[in-house]
Amino acid sequence: MPLDPDILKSCMPIETRHALTRRDTILYSLGIGVGIGEPGGAEALRFAYEPELAAFPTMATILAYPGFWQREPRFGLDWRRILHGEQSVRIHQPLPVEGVLVGRTEIDGIFDKGADKGALIYSRREIRDEATGDLVATIIQGSFLRGDGGFGGSAEGAPRPHSVPERAPDVTIDLRTRPEQALIYRLSGDYNPLHVDPDVARAAGFTRPILHGLCTYGVAGRAVLAGLCDGEPERLTRIDCRFTAPLYPGETIRTEIWREGEGRAAFRSSVAERGVVVLNNGLAEYR
Amino acid sequence: MPLDPDILKSCMPIETRHALTRRDTILYSLGIGVGIGEPGGAEALRFAYEPELAAFPTMATILAYPGFWQREPRFGLDWRRILHGEQSVRIHQPLPVEGVLVGRTEIDGIFDKGADKGALIYSRREIRDEATGDLVATIIQGSFLRGDGGFGGSAEGAPRPHSVPERAPDVTIDLRTRPEQALIYRLSGDYNPLHVDPDVARAAGFTRPILHGLCTYGVAGRAVLAGLCDGEPERLTRIDCRFTAPLYPGETIRTEIWREGEGRAAFRSSVAERGVVVLNNGLAEYR
Repeated sequence: MPLDPDILKSCMPIETRHALTRRDTILYSLGIGVGIGEPGGAEALRFAYEPELAAFPTMATILAYPGFWQREPRFGLDWRRILHGEQSVRIHQPLPVEGVLVGRTEIDGIFDKGADKGALIYSRREIRDEATGDLVATIIQGSFLRGDGGFGGSAEGAPRPHSVPERAPDVTIDLRTRPEQALIYRLSGDYNPLHVDPDVARAAGFTRPILHGLCTYGVAGRAVLAGLCDGEPERLTRIDCRFTAPLYPGETIRTEIWREGEGRAAFRSSVAERGVVVLNNGLAEYR
Repeated sequence: MPLDPDILKSCMPIETRHALTRRDTILYSLGIGVGIGEPGGAEALRFAYEPELAAFPTMATILAYPGFWQREPRFGLDWRRILHGEQSVRIHQPLPVEGVLVGRTEIDGIFDKGADKGALIYSRREIRDEATGDLVATIIQGSFLRGDGGFGGSAEGAPRPHSVPERAPDVTIDLRTRPEQALIYRLSGDYNPLHVDPDVARAAGFTRPILHGLCTYGVAGRAVLAGLCDGEPERLTRIDCRFTAPLYPGETIRTEIWREGEGRAAFRSSVAERGVVVLNNGLAEYR
């Protein structure tokens, strides 16, 4: 059924509040594979150990997260046919390792690709530190609603994907995931059974549970931070991508990076074992 | 310096209170390696997934845990020379997956092995469900205080270790740990840097960080539950052992089990790769 943009907008903003502990910050890092291969290495000591603990930049995706709000009946959406299509994270200041974060989620854009294709919705979440009021990060999430197109809207003005160069990448980094990776990642808040229950995964058409897209995104973020920012979290200011295919926990994520000028790069991630591109049109900004 | 039994007893009991969530219960399971090798298997679905979530029995060791109380100055102990020597867990009813647990820790026995050998202290912790008042588990922990012997006490009456038979074991189960296992396990409450920081580990005489003894104990518990109780947590009522050597995360824990009659078995765990015994004199009781 076509969506109703007025209903959608009238239900906004969604306000969220998230009490974050240092343990949560470490758990997020472990969820995206920090420590695999080098548990006593610099990355683990930085992002999974208390003395000089820093939050991994892509942790912004789970802060003050509103959950799968599209599923709520009041929005009238065909939620079973929604795909998480795009992610953009802008980091305005280093993420706190503990504290209270407040989120405000609004609709940023609604585009109509037609009844046969679907609708595109972009939501924007501003995350602030409750104690200081500072804007910490802005998240834009693009969802593809395959069952909600043809509502009489326009496809004009939808964000264009960032192009990845055709030349060989400047940096290529392989990062392993563990077969049990999703069991850890989900404790950061996305408890969708698709990522752990073999029966649910089969019913959805997969041979076994798939990894969370935002976990893959975090692993790509680790490659980007290592490849462009010497592993220094405060230097990464933006990381965007499109989700193109699922990945199975245990597979290796190969991230290719192309430098494109001062503080800007393109990236793409694929499954090293199968060659399938899982994240595409990646854009990273850094200082 | 010899310890003073009167001071020790006068500071007891230590009362603790622990608000446990389902997420904590799952995190404990992942910390002892549930999901490794078979993330969609029966063990993972039982102990790391919400629909039929059960607490893993050895989780009792972290419930309402008083921390490293021996380090507090009021006890006057030579805490740097303390070794965790023995563990006994009796489970009186299935552990809750969430709720508030209260602990009451007291001294159960103090034995003097002489100034050259040290002192043995047994502490007993009774863990109750705050809501019902029910006794859930009783933990006895034996510590060897190498620097506190010769206080004029007796060695008489100290608990005797359970003997492991000389015949071939009835069941042998190998369980892998991950190199990053301690990074996960420590989030259940034991943040000793010895288990994560290479510098601290070297200063303590180890080539790299060692696994928590209670993590190894939990892995042995998984072998015991699989080997004797068909993986059914409510059937395990007791699991005791002595800690004999450290293990490095990433090594495989081989647990050998000997059935000794109705609902009773001996066990021993060693490093499969090196043959070194890490847990000995194991005793399990089950129904």
